[in-house]
Amino acid sequence: MASPAVAFARENHQRFLSELKDLLRIPSVSTSEEHKSDVQKAADFVAAELRRIGMENVEVVPTKGHPLIYADWLHAPGSPTALCYAHYDVQPPDPLDEWVSPPFEPTERNNNLYARGAVDDKGQLWMEIKAVEALMKGHGGKLPLNLKFIIEGEEEVGGESIAEYVRKQKAKLRADFALVCDTELFAPDLPTLCVGLRGLVYTEIEALGPKTDLHSGMYGGVAPNPFFGLIEILSQLKDSKGRILIPGFYRDVKKPSTDELKAWKRLPFNEEHYRKTEVGSKVLIGEPGFSVLYRTWARPTLEVHGMPGGFTAPGAKTVIPARAAAKVSMRLVPDQDPDDILKRYTNYVKKLTPKGIETKIKVWSKGPACVVGTENPYIKAATLAMHDVFKDVFKKDTVFIRSGGSIPIVTDFQDVLKIPSVMMGFGLPDDNLHAPNEKFHIPNFYRGIESICLFFEKLSRT
Amino acid sequence: MASPAVAFARENHQRFLSELKDLLRIPSVSTSEEHKSDVQKAADFVAAELRRIGMENVEVVPTKGHPLIYADWLHAPGSPTALCYAHYDVQPPDPLDEWVSPPFEPTERNNNLYARGAVDDKGQLWMEIKAVEALMKGHGGKLPLNLKFIIEGEEEVGGESIAEYVRKQKAKLRADFALVCDTELFAPDLPTLCVGLRGLVYTEIEALGPKTDLHSGMYGGVAPNPFFGLIEILSQLKDSKGRILIPGFYRDVKKPSTDELKAWKRLPFNEEHYRKTEVGSKVLIGEPGFSVLYRTWARPTLEVHGMPGGFTAPGAKTVIPARAAAKVSMRLVPDQDPDDILKRYTNYVKKLTPKGIETKIKVWSKGPACVVGTENPYIKAATLAMHDVFKDVFKKDTVFIRSGGSIPIVTDFQDVLKIPSVMMGFGLPDDNLHAPNEKFHIPNFYRGIESICLFFEKLSRT
Repeated sequence: MASPAVAFARENHQRFLSELKDLLRIPSVSTSEEHKSDVQKAADFVAAELRRIGMENVEVVPTKGHPLIYADWLHAPGSPTALCYAHYDVQPPDPLDEWVSPPFEPTERNNNLYARGAVDDKGQLWMEIKAVEALMKGHGGKLPLNLKFIIEGEEEVGGESIAEYVRKQKAKLRADFALVCDTELFAPDLPTLCVGLRGLVYTEIEALGPKTDLHSGMYGGVAPNPFFGLIEILSQLKDSKGRILIPGFYRDVKKPSTDELKAWKRLPFNEEHYRKTEVGSKVLIGEPGFSVLYRTWARPTLEVHGMPGGFTAPGAKTVIPARAAAKVSMRLVPDQDPDDILKRYTNYVKKLTPKGIETKIKVWSKGPACVVGTENPYIKAATLAMHDVFKDVFKKDTVFIRSGGSIPIVTDFQDVLKIPSVMMGFGLPDDNLHAPNEKFHIPNFYRGIESICLFFEKLSRT
Repeated sequence: MASPAVAFARENHQRFLSELKDLLRIPSVSTSEEHKSDVQKAADFVAAELRRIGMENVEVVPTKGHPLIYADWLHAPGSPTALCYAHYDVQPPDPLDEWVSPPFEPTERNNNLYARGAVDDKGQLWMEIKAVEALMKGHGGKLPLNLKFIIEGEEEVGGESIAEYVRKQKAKLRADFALVCDTELFAPDLPTLCVGLRGLVYTEIEALGPKTDLHSGMYGGVAPNPFFGLIEILSQLKDSKGRILIPGFYRDVKKPSTDELKAWKRLPFNEEHYRKTEVGSKVLIGEPGFSVLYRTWARPTLEVHGMPGGFTAPGAKTVIPARAAAKVSMRLVPDQDPDDILKRYTNYVKKLTPKGIETKIKVWSKGPACVVGTENPYIKAATLAMHDVFKDVFKKDTVFIRSGGSIPIVTDFQDVLKIPSVMMGFGLPDDNLHAPNEKFHIPNFYRGIESICLFFEKLSRT
């Protein structure tokens, strides 16, 4: 690991951490109107640091919501261009009385740094910036590749502004790959890259029955009830084992590679512990013959999230409602096409709709799965970089995981900019994201900086 | 019809109608806090009139909500005791701009009296009071039977106070039968008595899955979803033809008598008109082999009224909720026992509950069907009285109908006071109850007074 950048980073551990604390002291809670000026302050703080370390064309871009920050350095002809993403906004700190130390007064305990945003995502944003500073210093004021930053302040509130910006500024954001530092390690000692996310089709089925709400005493027995229409439909979308019954739904499902499946089996994962501590249910359900990781990472699923309509307040009201609805989403895996799935789903729902009921389907969101092959050159470079950083301590190879959720910005980078994302995150499963006592394990902050340094150095063609 | 009471009533048509208008001018909207003093004013108005016509022990009884009015006259030894029920509160008049004449300025058009409460229920309350006045005058200051009034001001808001009063004042309210004037004629020219109401068991099934709300991206495929638990249960409660699948559910169902079924077939009823104008659905659903009237009056049914839980606001939230619920009610017919049905239902729901889900059943209300045999002496007397009043105009026999709904006070009279109710109402199907331009057909107001006079005269043993 004879990297001049890593050497510089190691000499500056204390300063880097101290600067991060300054950023963490700004309560940039994006959900809260009263913190609007704090969010702006955090954006300005980040932009100033980007200027100071030598990034060019630094802009704080106003949006309808909170500002974006753009910066670039493009003087490495022949080398690839990285687009570095992170976010500087944080979740609200509530409930305040469960914090051991105040959420906006960063405090070190047991080699952890406690504060709202410590790991999600200010700490990981700071890793990116400090890696770039170390690379500049280590390489005589130059970077080993071309680099752009796009940093947002609305990740915790839906990320609308960055999605619009990506669509409008395709040329400006052109790059060969994105680096996204907003995920976590599978286990504390395990260098991890996330190489897959499931896609999503989110719909609402509206069922219409009588022309107005009717009294179930007067009309029960003759009036079609939209809830029973929905129940008849929903009960036929999945079987009791969780297998989705929409004709052709599994046609394009691509199995993970044999290597990937083997690797998942080697991951440290205790199903019973997971059931008890994470899910908190009596049993885990799902398709027989697939492991938990397989079911949540690489199998498509279908869920109902809510059923608006009728009477939902406490007590009894005997209404047969004129309309009711069901929010139904499907998680997709490679190579399912969201439009194809939506069409099959719509046709099937129409076919299942009982007489007397009319159904309408609204689409709330729709995006494909994102998977980057482990043979992708950027993934390979990142794999080696993380291996180098962790091997001295843990002697373990970098593992590849997926996530069952969707990260909208990764989908946008794939769909709009047509680039893969390297999801290199250094959080830990018990870091209390979105909860009291959020923390960042301090050694992981430094490992993150070093991993990025080595990753970018490996990609240099100069 | 040589009744001195009827003769008196006919001489006083104009005064009776004019007094009713005075009562209708008081906006006694029980749902609205701002009308609280108007509700009290209406109660005082009614109590004053009861005193004026010679009723004794007139009380305006304060309650937690709006006052009840009690009165009696008990000087007809040997004759039965009637308990006369009606209500003086009304629905809100909204939407105001759809009224042709102001809701609280009673207006005559085409032999109808238009006002909020005209038929529901001030007009029918006034029928009872005016019949009693006419009987007093026609019989030299005496009534042909013993009589108690219990009049409420909370019928439109749930009737809690009268339910409590009936439970606490069993001795005071002791009677042989109740007269309930709050229903309608089956058709404009048809003297009608309602002799049956369906019972009701109203429950809420709560389904519990994971210990907290989970993200469907992370946990979709392994976490049990309470909505799918409910869907699996609800889809097995009824078949697609509307037949309820709870084991033993139909065991105690008593068929209406052959005479009753024959009589229903003779009722003027156009199914297509009913479907279009009342239900407003594309088709009518329900058990094959049973007519619409049979299905709504004398077959038990099961409906879902609402499914609280999860995410119901506009938009997309990918939650697997920790809990969800379904409000499920069953309408019961003779001789189904609510406790037996509830037990069978509970056992069946538990049996259907899939693994990973826990269900809890809450009971919101529960009461048996109420049916009075057409051979009951009070029903017989009422039948003859209505026949006498209507025969001069329409030459039709009194018909017996049922209603699919429940009238809680009738259930209370049956269950707590152990007396049958004679439901003798003079509304018409197009009287716009609870809607703008509520009306009472003025000839029916007079027919109601005369019917009650003759009914009570027929019951006299003096």
